[in-house]
Amino acid sequence: MDVIEYVPTRDQYTYTFGGAAPMMRVRPGSVLRIWSDDAFGGALRTVDDLSSAKVDLRFVNPQSGPFYVEGAEPGDTLVLHLVALEPARDWGASAAIPFFGGMTGTDRTVTLQEPLPDTTWIYELERERGTVTFAARHSEHRVELPVDPMLGTVGVAPAGGEVRSSLVPERFGGNTDTPEMRAGATAFLGVNVEGAMFSIGDGHYRQGEGEACGTAVEGAMTTTLIVELVKGGAPAWPRIEDDTHLMSIGSSRPMEDSWRIANADLVGWVADLSGLHVMDAYQLLSQVTLAPIANVVDANYSVVVKAATALLPTVAPYDGIHAELRARARSLGSL
Amino acid sequence: MDVIEYVPTRDQYTYTFGGAAPMMRVRPGSVLRIWSDDAFGGALRTVDDLSSAKVDLRFVNPQSGPFYVEGAEPGDTLVLHLVALEPARDWGASAAIPFFGGMTGTDRTVTLQEPLPDTTWIYELERERGTVTFAARHSEHRVELPVDPMLGTVGVAPAGGEVRSSLVPERFGGNTDTPEMRAGATAFLGVNVEGAMFSIGDGHYRQGEGEACGTAVEGAMTTTLIVELVKGGAPAWPRIEDDTHLMSIGSSRPMEDSWRIANADLVGWVADLSGLHVMDAYQLLSQVTLAPIANVVDANYSVVVKAATALLPTVAPYDGIHAELRARARSLGSL
Amino acid sequence: MDVIEYVPTRDQYTYTFGGAAPMMRVRPGSVLRIWSDDAFGGALRTVDDLSSAKVDLRFVNPQSGPFYVEGAEPGDTLVLHLVALEPARDWGASAAIPFFGGMTGTDRTVTLQEPLPDTTWIYELERERGTVTFAARHSEHRVELPVDPMLGTVGVAPAGGEVRSSLVPERFGGNTDTPEMRAGATAFLGVNVEGAMFSIGDGHYRQGEGEACGTAVEGAMTTTLIVELVKGGAPAWPRIEDDTHLMSIGSSRPMEDSWRIANADLVGWVADLSGLHVMDAYQLLSQVTLAPIANVVDANYSVVVKAATALLPTVAPYDGIHAELRARARSLGSL
Amino acid sequence: MDVIEYVPTRDQYTYTFGGAAPMMRVRPGSVLRIWSDDAFGGALRTVDDLSSAKVDLRFVNPQSGPFYVEGAEPGDTLVLHLVALEPARDWGASAAIPFFGGMTGTDRTVTLQEPLPDTTWIYELERERGTVTFAARHSEHRVELPVDPMLGTVGVAPAGGEVRSSLVPERFGGNTDTPEMRAGATAFLGVNVEGAMFSIGDGHYRQGEGEACGTAVEGAMTTTLIVELVKGGAPAWPRIEDDTHLMSIGSSRPMEDSWRIANADLVGWVADLSGLHVMDAYQLLSQVTLAPIANVVDANYSVVVKAATALLPTVAPYDGIHAELRARARSLGSL
Repeated sequence: MDVIEYVPTRDQYTYTFGGAAPMMRVRPGSVLRIWSDDAFGGALRTVDDLSSAKVDLRFVNPQSGPFYVEGAEPGDTLVLHLVALEPARDWGASAAIPFFGGMTGTDRTVTLQEPLPDTTWIYELERERGTVTFAARHSEHRVELPVDPMLGTVGVAPAGGEVRSSLVPERFGGNTDTPEMRAGATAFLGVNVEGAMFSIGDGHYRQGEGEACGTAVEGAMTTTLIVELVKGGAPAWPRIEDDTHLMSIGSSRPMEDSWRIANADLVGWVADLSGLHVMDAYQLLSQVTLAPIANVVDANYSVVVKAATALLPTVAPYDGIHAELRARARSLGSL
Repeated sequence: MDVIEYVPTRDQYTYTFGGAAPMMRVRPGSVLRIWSDDAFGGALRTVDDLSSAKVDLRFVNPQSGPFYVEGAEPGDTLVLHLVALEPARDWGASAAIPFFGGMTGTDRTVTLQEPLPDTTWIYELERERGTVTFAARHSEHRVELPVDPMLGTVGVAPAGGEVRSSLVPERFGGNTDTPEMRAGATAFLGVNVEGAMFSIGDGHYRQGEGEACGTAVEGAMTTTLIVELVKGGAPAWPRIEDDTHLMSIGSSRPMEDSWRIANADLVGWVADLSGLHVMDAYQLLSQVTLAPIANVVDANYSVVVKAATALLPTVAPYDGIHAELRARARSLGSL
Repeated sequence: MDVIEYVPTRDQYTYTFGGAAPMMRVRPGSVLRIWSDDAFGGALRTVDDLSSAKVDLRFVNPQSGPFYVEGAEPGDTLVLHLVALEPARDWGASAAIPFFGGMTGTDRTVTLQEPLPDTTWIYELERERGTVTFAARHSEHRVELPVDPMLGTVGVAPAGGEVRSSLVPERFGGNTDTPEMRAGATAFLGVNVEGAMFSIGDGHYRQGEGEACGTAVEGAMTTTLIVELVKGGAPAWPRIEDDTHLMSIGSSRPMEDSWRIANADLVGWVADLSGLHVMDAYQLLSQVTLAPIANVVDANYSVVVKAATALLPTVAPYDGIHAELRARARSLGSL
Repeated sequence: MDVIEYVPTRDQYTYTFGGAAPMMRVRPGSVLRIWSDDAFGGALRTVDDLSSAKVDLRFVNPQSGPFYVEGAEPGDTLVLHLVALEPARDWGASAAIPFFGGMTGTDRTVTLQEPLPDTTWIYELERERGTVTFAARHSEHRVELPVDPMLGTVGVAPAGGEVRSSLVPERFGGNTDTPEMRAGATAFLGVNVEGAMFSIGDGHYRQGEGEACGTAVEGAMTTTLIVELVKGGAPAWPRIEDDTHLMSIGSSRPMEDSWRIANADLVGWVADLSGLHVMDAYQLLSQVTLAPIANVVDANYSVVVKAATALLPTVAPYDGIHAELRARARSLGSL
């Protein structure tokens, strides 16, 4: 199977979901190998590169894309199977951006206090050992942390003609910033416009749940993914299936609403797939779900609600496409 | 070592943290084996026992205790190491209580809509197989789920002379409803009054994160725990250490505030223990924490933020008391 | 009619709703003239008295009371008609307490930022002109503001055996901090315990809606009020009637929940009084209510929803007791 | 002075802020007389027109515009002085749209409950008496309510290339749904794109604060306004000045964040205008602001914080343009 390479030039970076012309047309079934820059557009390369000087929050998370998926129409389900995520640089960067993040007043949770000290951390990648190294900046400490690559942003064009910043997680996916968006996962996104117009970016070499300081170990990434299309069946909110779990992602404010969205979507999904009455699905999931917070720092907060497939009635979401894609991905192994 | 048995009579049940006379005085170092009734006081025994008829939300989560810990003074740290949690009945119960839970309007998130159908589910315990069986009520399905016993409520008397319902999670612990409160965990609670006055209850044979429908697999429980006391060092919010993680629990509303509380507490705890500058602790934890939601249904919502000890600087919280208690617990093995 | 004077000694101050023995027993129909200290217990008397040194947030809003109302039983409605509020000192105080207030991180909305500068402002009362004078502390400006006396806290003992700090607004009233609690208003509170056990305090010589910095022009107050009792009819949340409006007060978090509580209570109240279908009451009130925020700074946030009686169907809440109390109050004019 | 009339055809309606080509170019100083359709695009004309059949929430609040203001550049301040708002039909409509509004679960605050009954109310306008008549639908009652015309949406194109639905209130204005947006008010909006690209719509013949049921007395409107431009000085959030008050409008979630935004903006505005230290502005405003909720039903919740100019240091925002526009508006009286 052919693999389509996509490496954008800097002037091809896009900073919105919706509102940009397609960079490429792809057919369902295509395998793409996409390079994406880091959240800062590569602007933070040493600890002396401060975000207050080099980062404009209106233009972060540069997207690679959008890609026009042939045949995709509103109401369809875009399926993106993440085959592999490979760090594309030998270092990642993180920053405590003034008035951005979870432990500071922000432009929404406004206070009159002074900002936290603007600080940049650089994480060296040890490719063979599969680690990135944290090096303290205001004290002394170094520690290697396992690499666990993920994509902070995976999204399609929004509904209703909206165009949203790539800093936003919403119904259309976007900047959900969940570690669940890793290799082996199949993402399902409702299509809102012809061609779906998906894009990806904001690679993280690793991230804690919540993304507390507002930024992960941000790094350029090479992502291999398979694009598929299911006619109809558009989920209202992003969903993920991996080998062990079904997941729904809610993104809103306050955070209990993010959870409500994700939990209700998962209840409805399981009820639809299994024939369980919605009250029974509600009860069963109450006893088996995990509910990891994804981010508490973006324009909306994101929460994942997930259930182990082994504890559910036998279900095959979207006709079992995840298992089929896993098999297809394995056949790419020799790439 | 002697084990002190405590089985309350029904008139010894308490429904508050604070405000009750001590049921027993115990010395630090004591091993207690405590029976606690389920959240409903045993009122839901068949699927025909409906919560609207049999449950008064002002009097749920009957507590076993309070216990007066000798020598405990305000500012001290109460240490409770959970040795074993054993289901004390052969069934657990769960219910969709009208206007209570995460997928319905409540007395706070008030709507004018009709309630969801009042439904009770009974889970038979298969003790040998270590499972409870979900049986659908409005449709057809049965599935065995692994037992994972935990305590929904572990708390002390509040500060400032307050008395709080056993439905409330707060600084003093209480109804945090996190699956992390399981055997093998050591809980740390700040002491607010002489004797600490701790109590436990609300056993769950298992619970999903979020406790979505408002109730877990509620069951009477026999809990074996070791009581210890550290002079001073009172944490502002409940903390847990187990063999792999340090955890802080925040309980407030909206849920982002619960997370902020827990995350800030963990950042401060790690900074204090390790000597890391708080900005470095903030950064390091941003990349390594897990952030599972505990409950979205109680008087306050609870969030756990946890970090793998293996990824932190070498630390020994409270002089390494967790490891020491684990050893002591093992020596009780022949009980 | 006799007027009962009550001036507590300092050791008679109470700091909770519930949990205190009654200071006095009063009969329905009684007129009380109650002195209450300011929120700081008089600790801030000059601009050099800083809250960080002199205020313990566990012991603010000293209450005058509790008063045991003869005949009051759970489910009854306590009626308190505020006849007159007179500043009892010649100055009020306000403070930006560190990590307390609406424009700073707090113990709930935790950040890692430094606190705002701890500052105290003293407002001189010009009794004849009916003003208090703001005098800037970090810059130069003075301006006289009209006095508009109100009570920050009016409450009864909570349900379920709870005891709550006098910093808390809740179902039982308490620290709602609304300027609507002024002379001429009749407050309705559901009775939870025998004797109702009401108390008042936290006088404000004036306050903006929201109480943004966390404190109003805090001042000792002499309050004249008439106590009445309606058997049954306990409202779930505090209500107020004045000569022009019906009001409900919701106190919770997040603030939309406070609004939901107040709005639903007012819809239900009007529907009950008028016979309007709840959907029609919902619609009519949607077009006529005012919704002033009361406080965004306390343990719960408070919102008032109010409707002009003139735009409602003819209603006489609690058998027209407000009009009757207004008449009775006028007859006290010669006091 | 010439008055420019603008009456869009239906195919000229726009449903977004940003993303639409300008309908007209206007010079600063222009007087416009703009017709706008109601929120439903005129689809609800009798009580038998139900929103579930006739309203698509992706396409409500049709905008008249956008208007390109000559000379407007990013960072400038667009000034819109509302001279007159005249109901353009003889009736208004309101509806309880399923899963939309403040007293129901929504697409964000998701519950599993059934929707409220889909109901439409038609309000006849009595032009001479200046009233609209509420007529109950599920019970019997009629009452005339005073007309108080306002615009639910006044906005410009967003920053960062975003395009937002006309259902959204945000930094760019939009669907703030505050009764303060009435004749006599001067609105200030930060310009984000060349030409500002402002539009208006969503006229309300009257609305309660909070817009509880999700819709006001929605009506087609003829709005006379003067367009002005101040170079530079762009406020971060919408501001209003009228003859008595300065106001800031915050729109976010949860609602305390909306308040924080508005309050911080007003504190900063007053500090900038007056030279007061920000802590003194914070204190003074704490004692004088009003804080009416605007809406609790839109994509973001909106809160107005306002201060009486008479209680502030002498200030002349934007060089006193409001007073000058009032004078200009009076000179139009003979229109």
